[in-house]
Amino acid sequence: MKIAIYGYGNIGKGVECAIAQNSDAELFGIFTRRAPESLVTLTGAKVYPAADIDKYAEEIDALIICAGSATDLPEMTPALAEKFNVVDSFDTHARIPQHFEAVNAAAEKGGKVALISGGWDPGMFSIARLYASAILPNGRDYTFWGRGVSQGHSDAIRHVPGVLDARQYTVPVTEAVEAVRRGECPTLTTRQKHLRECYVVAEEGADKEAIREAIVTMPNYFADYDTTVEFITAEEMAAKHSALPHGGCVIRSGVSGLNGEHKHTIEYSLNLDSNPEFTASVLVACARAVVRMEKKGDVGCKTMFDIPPSMLSPLSPEELRAKML
Amino acid sequence: MKIAIYGYGNIGKGVECAIAQNSDAELFGIFTRRAPESLVTLTGAKVYPAADIDKYAEEIDALIICAGSATDLPEMTPALAEKFNVVDSFDTHARIPQHFEAVNAAAEKGGKVALISGGWDPGMFSIARLYASAILPNGRDYTFWGRGVSQGHSDAIRHVPGVLDARQYTVPVTEAVEAVRRGECPTLTTRQKHLRECYVVAEEGADKEAIREAIVTMPNYFADYDTTVEFITAEEMAAKHSALPHGGCVIRSGVSGLNGEHKHTIEYSLNLDSNPEFTASVLVACARAVVRMEKKGDVGCKTMFDIPPSMLSPLSPEELRAKML
Repeated sequence: MKIAIYGYGNIGKGVECAIAQNSDAELFGIFTRRAPESLVTLTGAKVYPAADIDKYAEEIDALIICAGSATDLPEMTPALAEKFNVVDSFDTHARIPQHFEAVNAAAEKGGKVALISGGWDPGMFSIARLYASAILPNGRDYTFWGRGVSQGHSDAIRHVPGVLDARQYTVPVTEAVEAVRRGECPTLTTRQKHLRECYVVAEEGADKEAIREAIVTMPNYFADYDTTVEFITAEEMAAKHSALPHGGCVIRSGVSGLNGEHKHTIEYSLNLDSNPEFTASVLVACARAVVRMEKKGDVGCKTMFDIPPSMLSPLSPEELRAKML
Repeated sequence: MKIAIYGYGNIGKGVECAIAQNSDAELFGIFTRRAPESLVTLTGAKVYPAADIDKYAEEIDALIICAGSATDLPEMTPALAEKFNVVDSFDTHARIPQHFEAVNAAAEKGGKVALISGGWDPGMFSIARLYASAILPNGRDYTFWGRGVSQGHSDAIRHVPGVLDARQYTVPVTEAVEAVRRGECPTLTTRQKHLRECYVVAEEGADKEAIREAIVTMPNYFADYDTTVEFITAEEMAAKHSALPHGGCVIRSGVSGLNGEHKHTIEYSLNLDSNPEFTASVLVACARAVVRMEKKGDVGCKTMFDIPPSMLSPLSPEELRAKML
């Protein structure tokens, strides 16, 4: 299958690397809204102007759209889903239903298959929640994120006056995770679930106490959490905080038996050195499924909930049953 | 949906309890090869003779076959799959391909949908292996079982002369699990992965040393493991070892990036108070999917690899996207 990448940020680069690991996939090229000659690709992949993409519709089996959920994907995915099988990682949970409707209309019109919200949350964590709740209807689930870098929170700190650079780590509270693992089904406030750990490079002469106060009281982002702020140098930031690790876990505990006398705990956890590269790896598996679904005559918008697991694997159904079941 | 149970052992009883937890499911009744009047059911469910089952074909949406994989399921599932949508938990991994073929032929002939090898291994663990390997093709996975009771190993001990009763726990080796979790991809022998812990009630006057020797040297079951044998009283067995806990984990670690520079670890783990009741809970979710697949016009034998996750949940696709994605 020939896969094209639309947008060349961290996830686009991750897709480029992931395609190289899958022998049934080939990178057609990268489409960019920037000047194509300005892009140096990791693998020497061909670069095309985004405006020309329709010319290549016949040659591309699936298009992975690697752009932001705030403003780009709500426009791009519906616009591209009519002519291409597309995959995106739309992650604004609250707006998924409307994104789904827009993409579905376009994909149905063009007779194509689209997969939205691929990745790990939404994505693999969502799937873990779904399986666990279908198996243990009488139970409760919890999602913990981290330890990992939140780009949204890092950006929010960068907008505080006097801040040159910032990195924010979301950290699950160990005691809360352990209580959930023991099946205690605790009721947890936002503050009891996660800590926020901030590393900040301040301008010379900046009022650090004012910066700290602006961060920890910031509504939505930090006010509801226990937040620590540590001021570091630009050199330390580059040396210790340039990676984008993330992860977390979904835990559901529930009961079975005539009177709920038996307790069960299901946990799905991820420990990722590179959040964008892992997300990209999921997207490439989704692209494989999308191509297969279109070939089978399927049409419209899907999520990972709609994909039979076997469609994500390069192995045949016979091989999967013999080796992996 | 109306579900019937075929076979009333531990898993059959678990299915009876699980159906009561699912408001969209109703228990039609229990079919048994024993004298129906000899069965006292947990919930007062109706009991029918297995021989009469064809009479009720129109009234049953799905039939969950709860019997052993050694001799019962290879005959029962193909025999029933022509007239009923069926679900089984066939767990002899090596014989899954031939069981699949036999069940598929029957289901296709009758225009029905069959799901084989539902449960947690095969089942949820298989799904965890599949997703993880599709996402991280450049990696390695490990499955650890326990701490939990292995019924096959407990039975094997009961056949040793002088043994009245026995319970065997499979125990993963902590150091091995931790090394795998750290992403070290160790090469592990059978002995390095699991321990076997045996509790034995011996006949009065039996030669305990001979029993111990017979157990720890038993080929296939114990010879390749570090095995401990502890002799206990029948009272202690009843008090401390009557439950059937189990669980374990599937861990895959793999790499991404241009030169595999980023490591990722995916783990799926289960901690179960009751192995048969958890298996039964999975089978009921599978029954829901089987009924839906037949309604959609699907036909033939499936495994959990072929079921889109959304089909297992009582929630609608819209609800799933809004609440769980």
